[in-house]
Amino acid sequence: MNIGHDMHAFVARLFPICRSLTGEGTRETLRIIKGHLPDLSIHEVPSGTQVFDWVIPDEWNIRSATLVGPDGATVADFGWTNLHVVGYSEPVDVELGLDELQEHLFSLPEQPDAIPYVTSYYKRFWGFCLSHRVRAALKPGTYRARIDSTIAPGRLSYGELLIPGQEPQEVFLSTNVCHPSMANNELSGLTVTTWLAKWLLERPRRYSYRIVFIPETIGSITYLSRHLEQMKERVVAGFVVACVGDERVYSFLSSRNGNTLADRVARHVLDQIDPNYMRYSFLNRGSDERQYCAPGVDLPVVSVMRSKYCEYPEYHTSLDDLTLVTPAGLEGGYTALRRCIEVIESNRRWQVAVLGEPQLGKRGLFPSISLPAEVPSVKAMMNMIAYCDGTRDLVEVAELIGVPAWQLVPICERLASHDLLRVA
Amino acid sequence: MNIGHDMHAFVARLFPICRSLTGEGTRETLRIIKGHLPDLSIHEVPSGTQVFDWVIPDEWNIRSATLVGPDGATVADFGWTNLHVVGYSEPVDVELGLDELQEHLFSLPEQPDAIPYVTSYYKRFWGFCLSHRVRAALKPGTYRARIDSTIAPGRLSYGELLIPGQEPQEVFLSTNVCHPSMANNELSGLTVTTWLAKWLLERPRRYSYRIVFIPETIGSITYLSRHLEQMKERVVAGFVVACVGDERVYSFLSSRNGNTLADRVARHVLDQIDPNYMRYSFLNRGSDERQYCAPGVDLPVVSVMRSKYCEYPEYHTSLDDLTLVTPAGLEGGYTALRRCIEVIESNRRWQVAVLGEPQLGKRGLFPSISLPAEVPSVKAMMNMIAYCDGTRDLVEVAELIGVPAWQLVPICERLASHDLLRVA
Amino acid sequence: MNIGHDMHAFVARLFPICRSLTGEGTRETLRIIKGHLPDLSIHEVPSGTQVFDWVIPDEWNIRSATLVGPDGATVADFGWTNLHVVGYSEPVDVELGLDELQEHLFSLPEQPDAIPYVTSYYKRFWGFCLSHRVRAALKPGTYRARIDSTIAPGRLSYGELLIPGQEPQEVFLSTNVCHPSMANNELSGLTVTTWLAKWLLERPRRYSYRIVFIPETIGSITYLSRHLEQMKERVVAGFVVACVGDERVYSFLSSRNGNTLADRVARHVLDQIDPNYMRYSFLNRGSDERQYCAPGVDLPVVSVMRSKYCEYPEYHTSLDDLTLVTPAGLEGGYTALRRCIEVIESNRRWQVAVLGEPQLGKRGLFPSISLPAEVPSVKAMMNMIAYCDGTRDLVEVAELIGVPAWQLVPICERLASHDLLRVA
Repeated sequence: MNIGHDMHAFVARLFPICRSLTGEGTRETLRIIKGHLPDLSIHEVPSGTQVFDWVIPDEWNIRSATLVGPDGATVADFGWTNLHVVGYSEPVDVELGLDELQEHLFSLPEQPDAIPYVTSYYKRFWGFCLSHRVRAALKPGTYRARIDSTIAPGRLSYGELLIPGQEPQEVFLSTNVCHPSMANNELSGLTVTTWLAKWLLERPRRYSYRIVFIPETIGSITYLSRHLEQMKERVVAGFVVACVGDERVYSFLSSRNGNTLADRVARHVLDQIDPNYMRYSFLNRGSDERQYCAPGVDLPVVSVMRSKYCEYPEYHTSLDDLTLVTPAGLEGGYTALRRCIEVIESNRRWQVAVLGEPQLGKRGLFPSISLPAEVPSVKAMMNMIAYCDGTRDLVEVAELIGVPAWQLVPICERLASHDLLRVA
Repeated sequence: MNIGHDMHAFVARLFPICRSLTGEGTRETLRIIKGHLPDLSIHEVPSGTQVFDWVIPDEWNIRSATLVGPDGATVADFGWTNLHVVGYSEPVDVELGLDELQEHLFSLPEQPDAIPYVTSYYKRFWGFCLSHRVRAALKPGTYRARIDSTIAPGRLSYGELLIPGQEPQEVFLSTNVCHPSMANNELSGLTVTTWLAKWLLERPRRYSYRIVFIPETIGSITYLSRHLEQMKERVVAGFVVACVGDERVYSFLSSRNGNTLADRVARHVLDQIDPNYMRYSFLNRGSDERQYCAPGVDLPVVSVMRSKYCEYPEYHTSLDDLTLVTPAGLEGGYTALRRCIEVIESNRRWQVAVLGEPQLGKRGLFPSISLPAEVPSVKAMMNMIAYCDGTRDLVEVAELIGVPAWQLVPICERLASHDLLRVA
Repeated sequence: MNIGHDMHAFVARLFPICRSLTGEGTRETLRIIKGHLPDLSIHEVPSGTQVFDWVIPDEWNIRSATLVGPDGATVADFGWTNLHVVGYSEPVDVELGLDELQEHLFSLPEQPDAIPYVTSYYKRFWGFCLSHRVRAALKPGTYRARIDSTIAPGRLSYGELLIPGQEPQEVFLSTNVCHPSMANNELSGLTVTTWLAKWLLERPRRYSYRIVFIPETIGSITYLSRHLEQMKERVVAGFVVACVGDERVYSFLSSRNGNTLADRVARHVLDQIDPNYMRYSFLNRGSDERQYCAPGVDLPVVSVMRSKYCEYPEYHTSLDDLTLVTPAGLEGGYTALRRCIEVIESNRRWQVAVLGEPQLGKRGLFPSISLPAEVPSVKAMMNMIAYCDGTRDLVEVAELIGVPAWQLVPICERLASHDLLRVA
């Protein structure tokens, strides 16, 4: 099997689990990831802990939930899909009329077959999410709403994997483990991140890697509150890995700064892979880059995605399922991010080691007979020699001469082996 | 009555007075302004005083002037409109033939009904301005030209109003009092400036205000020669107020620098009020910004106008009258400039006071239930939190997030009241 | 005769000579140039000398060469055109079959009437260049190839002319003397350079001039290896003079830096002369700017050309002849470069010497009567006064106000004579 199918099978395995900011579903997800990444450490932070401006909420767990109509027929059942229940719903067992019930129902009139994803993390509430087609057909009468959940002091769980490299400087990968049964947003993210970690573990690494599997917002705030100073010292580039599983497009969301190494590398890679990728500024942010790029945090973190959250019709509904995310889509997301990491690993400031052009012919690097036709690899080599003046890194030179950075790496190495290029 | 009609009535009252660089008409105009601004101080600078590279000219006063034709009929009379006489015409009482007279006549063949505005400030001369239709009908014969004027040592007059604020830094407003009967250029300018001063006097002020009513060129040079060092220290933004009375368009003329606070604020305000406003560079300058932005002076002064001088057909003719300038036109000019001042008053470098996003929900600033639809005011608040890092002022943030600065002020204040934002 | 015809006659005189990196043809060419520039010094560098990463090659001389077919008919003769022989062909006198001969033949199938220009400077080889029409008609059989050449220790020759000016800072002109019978690339270059030198010798000079006539690549590397430190200290702008003889277009190739004085001046001049000129970046480089702009060398050198090398169909073939290069084409190339030099000579940072606008009227520099029509020269003068603040050089001001720099020079001088402008 290829990597795309492996990843899709992993998404499918995790799909039914009911994840949230906290709770057993998130813990189980982290344990399954740890099955692939044995060195993953799982951390638990007690409810009530202050993290920056926030407080870790109580832990939510849910066992079952049903909404039964006046005729005794079940309208919604947590067992059918966990999206039927508003996230963090408090326990309830009540009978109520349709009018009163409506205040606890959510649906999407413009997408009548989709069950929306709704949460109420920080205000006690209960509710059910229905397709609008089902909701519109509800008849007056007495309904029974039962949610067997608990909201009680517990722990917020997250996973962390630190992979050492030759240098203490770090590349940072962050993905979420808090969404219930939705595939692109977000199982694609944790899956691609897991496979990137597996690949990184198997290759020599210049940089160290800090990889976190966290609940969105409260998780990144918690993580930052514990590691900010170290990350500000070490992180050279970071990626929020989310929505990397469908086949439609590539998308890029810049850091707040807009021109960090991560921005430059991601733009360069996507320009080469698919020049029509969607370009989003930090104004379109929506995931944990909100924390990583916040004033005073200012980490060089971007997002490389397929169809971006908020921008595809299935987003945050039951339609974001195992058919939207595909093996090819996941593999595309994985490949783009791996390319970004490869470019970062090989990104150096090269400097020509001679004055004037070197005599390539005597080293067998240049055709001996002058002819009009250009050889692209010779042209790229000559351009490296012309532009590597020690002031530009490889990505800048690659952009300038219009060649993918990864095609320049062997050229740099060849020139360096002839003592014609050195790291500035 | 509304402010537009008040201002139009003021223009109408001043319209008949014959103003020039010097003389009783300018003095009378200043006295009428002082009727609205009792603290206005009127300064007099003697003829012959050296001001930078210039010398204050002799004072010009005119009582009457007529041009009578061979048939005894009056061709032009200063009493009909003061535009009939070339500004600073020396006294004359001569009879002369039509050919000789032609050298003293001015008209506009392409605007045959308009009487042009012509001056000869620094070279002794006399002349009459006629509509081309009248001039073309002149018959040969003996004409009698009489101008009862004096050019003699006297004084140049200007008005100055200093309005203190909390800070010694100043906003500067400059307008002219030297044009005879023309409404957009320039009675609109001094009128809008007077009403801006009245408004400023009634509100709390962060900045101090320096407001001058001066003759063009020699007046601004005179004023600068007396106050340059202080102005260079204090003025944070300035506006030449001219041509602010018609209804056609808004126009902006940048400072020489092009990117001062005044430039940024004026562009921001006009972008929001009327994105189709006319954009002029300093190459199109023509009023006292020539002095305020001169090398070595370099004050941050721009012009926010309606139809710009030199750019509308009635410019510098008798057609620039009380029908071209309207209550709505004046009110538009006033409003745009008042907005500029309001934005300058509220322009600060805000800085988020917490690390990571603050938890807005616990303060009632954020919806407790996650829903797809965005609330614009919440979005603007989130963007303020994301972009206020202490390096950008309010205008920069407003431009970045695409919201008028004045809509951000209450958001800043609300966040500041929760200790989430502070002035950097 | 005019200068264009003089230059074309010079091209014609030099056309038949067989130049190469080294050898008697190059020496003879330098002697003929010296006939026009008696102070030209001719330098000789021995074979085997190390110059940067290169070694001066053995000297190549050729007396005759013929390729005779099976029927006894001559296929190619060095006497017909020196392009028939591959540059630096080693001596040979062999009989061989057509198949074996083919490995020593060069032609251009897509330009069947053109004889290509081919060299093998650094690898021993011999060969003939034919039109493809002739080559395609070759019949099987035994051919006799005779080349009476020598490749032996000798000298590389180049010419250098240093013309002193008031300042030690230098303008640098570099042109090639290594191509055989081709007119645009490159006899046009050395010819226009010779005439520029003649013109420079006859006029007062602010800058000193360093003018070199060198073989391409090895010549510039040799020259730099001897003069780099001095040139880095002194050269304010430089031009590679090549391909300046046809009438089709103007072309500009920027320095590696892209924004040196030479870049700014050349763009300004070509914008004024022919706004449709071809703009090439340093990515399209191909002549000695490769050395002059190499990392660590970094001289401010650009190319101002007519049809650029590599970009016209006759390039490096026998079609680049005395019909492609014309008197008008040469004169155009000469004029553009002379304009560049004139602008550099007159480029200064002017600064207004008064505060506020000066009173031009009292000096007779401004019309005494206000009239609507603008006088272009007055407008340019006012713009000089507004923009000459000591931070911009003449070229920057000229670009800003949209007037050719050379039209501003007399205005600057006039204002300076009134003490209104001074050099900053």
